[in-house]
Amino acid sequence: MNRYPRIAVLGATGAVGQEFIRLFEERNFKFSSLKLLASARSAGKKISVCGKEYVVEEAKPESFEDVDIALFAGGNISKVLAPEAVKRGAVVIDNSSSFRMDPEVPLVIPEINPEDILWNKGIIANPNCSTIIMLMALKPIHDLSRIKRIVVSTYQAVSGAGKEGIDELYNETAAIAKGEHYEPTILPSASLPIHYQIAYNVIPQIDIFLDDDYTKEEMKMVNETHKILHDDSIGITPTAVRVPVVRSHAESIYIETEDVLSVDAVKEAIKNFPGAELVDDVENMKYPMPLDTSDKTDVAVGRIRKDLVSPNGINLWVSGDQIRKGAALNTLQIAEYMIEHDIIK
Amino acid sequence: MNRYPRIAVLGATGAVGQEFIRLFEERNFKFSSLKLLASARSAGKKISVCGKEYVVEEAKPESFEDVDIALFAGGNISKVLAPEAVKRGAVVIDNSSSFRMDPEVPLVIPEINPEDILWNKGIIANPNCSTIIMLMALKPIHDLSRIKRIVVSTYQAVSGAGKEGIDELYNETAAIAKGEHYEPTILPSASLPIHYQIAYNVIPQIDIFLDDDYTKEEMKMVNETHKILHDDSIGITPTAVRVPVVRSHAESIYIETEDVLSVDAVKEAIKNFPGAELVDDVENMKYPMPLDTSDKTDVAVGRIRKDLVSPNGINLWVSGDQIRKGAALNTLQIAEYMIEHDIIK
Repeated sequence: MNRYPRIAVLGATGAVGQEFIRLFEERNFKFSSLKLLASARSAGKKISVCGKEYVVEEAKPESFEDVDIALFAGGNISKVLAPEAVKRGAVVIDNSSSFRMDPEVPLVIPEINPEDILWNKGIIANPNCSTIIMLMALKPIHDLSRIKRIVVSTYQAVSGAGKEGIDELYNETAAIAKGEHYEPTILPSASLPIHYQIAYNVIPQIDIFLDDDYTKEEMKMVNETHKILHDDSIGITPTAVRVPVVRSHAESIYIETEDVLSVDAVKEAIKNFPGAELVDDVENMKYPMPLDTSDKTDVAVGRIRKDLVSPNGINLWVSGDQIRKGAALNTLQIAEYMIEHDIIK
Repeated sequence: MNRYPRIAVLGATGAVGQEFIRLFEERNFKFSSLKLLASARSAGKKISVCGKEYVVEEAKPESFEDVDIALFAGGNISKVLAPEAVKRGAVVIDNSSSFRMDPEVPLVIPEINPEDILWNKGIIANPNCSTIIMLMALKPIHDLSRIKRIVVSTYQAVSGAGKEGIDELYNETAAIAKGEHYEPTILPSASLPIHYQIAYNVIPQIDIFLDDDYTKEEMKMVNETHKILHDDSIGITPTAVRVPVVRSHAESIYIETEDVLSVDAVKEAIKNFPGAELVDDVENMKYPMPLDTSDKTDVAVGRIRKDLVSPNGINLWVSGDQIRKGAALNTLQIAEYMIEHDIIK
């Protein structure tokens, strides 16, 4: 393309949409035109992007005329509007779970499987936040020796439930401090019939339960990992848990590799992997923490140690910003990759 | 014994000490005399127990004259005073980690290995809170089929750092709400040179790091489990993490048993195990949460599901009150067992 791409952002007023805008400025992302789209409720809002004011428009199929890349922040609306955008010639990079497991749609983390971008048919899916953050730590190890087993327990921020999730944590905490009652309406998930306090609590449910008593969030970590790494034989045991943290996820991960790896080799591989940061100096109490990784680009990896039982076992602890690498940043990186490699039609 | 025992509480003004007193009232625990002991700093304080006022005395070796059972709330002082109390004829039930791995000292969870109480030589150790809460869920399963492998990640409340830990979480949260700076001084551990914010954060360190890059807390879970279950061959992978929760721990646990167990059999065993409560009805969004188990006696167990990979694998989620079953209650139950079975000299 001889010009900067024409961009649309769907869901511009939500947590992920707002992060796109922050990242445009921070990464000096160039576009020749920009449409900010949202539901009718948000239409008319004014948002400043790179010093220029834009008016939010109601998202409709026609909104995607004259758009090269459409960045979809997520939600059920993707299912309806993504095909409409593709029909009009746009490439959709979608944060929802609608298309992730569609065999016609690549599921991409640009540092891990950028080659899958090439066979896209108009839609490229952004993986679930927990999957991205886990795999940013595991891919460099997988490249050293195939990972055959993963047991992961997550510590997930409320930002995964959007702006409303963040508001609920703060409002609940404030009400408790005043001795007032607060009736939660968002967590564990707005669409569920029952809601629980997340302030000073931990909720072992993210998204709905499926037939096998795993949650949808947990099964995303399994299925998406298989798809991204092109290896269905990796055995994965997930437990997804919400904690009262604002915007960075953390994960406790046990892995078994085919070969015995030294801790030093693992540390070196993580240090050299783009997008991962080795934060591992326990003597000086340095390890990844959600507070430190919030608003950061890299996924922090630490507490790397040999398992006490299996010679092929390694334990690690990971933290990354859920809204950034877990969503908006990864999506934008896919767009950047396509622009850089001239993949946009 | 023909009379009610003479009781001393060491550390009467701390979180665990205060819980002893609540439990005396709640469980109608009878004593013929009671001494409340603490450091010189707390001496002179007045505390009401079962409607009677007691004055806190400074703990000294001589404090344990005419005492049958001394309940030690924990801390380094145990190492000095436990032998002094034993010398004076008291049985010490100790919450500190000082004697837990001493081969001359039984380490006891009354529902699990009460028989070990019998060979005590004056000191009985109370296990670490995370170990107790984990084993209350695992023992009924272990009784069905030997557990050979455990991978556990904890979500531990700040009460593990005492009253000061609870105060720090609340004060920090209040300061953040006002936009004020708060300098943490307690977590992850008061004795460490660096302290981190726990409000809206998660800290993957509890206690100090040991040579193998596991924390002391993590190795307690390994070594104490082996001692309590009398089986050093159980392979245990622990990750201990502090979360901004007030007083109940939670744990995500993966186990492998020798035989293939059905989920129904596991649920039934937990339901029938004294001190454990089955809270597992995901269809109705019922699972253990720290907010629900706080101030409760039983350890709640739920999210029991077959592993997706290993036919011998089971996953579960546990939560229990750290100050109660994790400390004061377990200690008091040991005392009650000794009284009931007339084991006190």
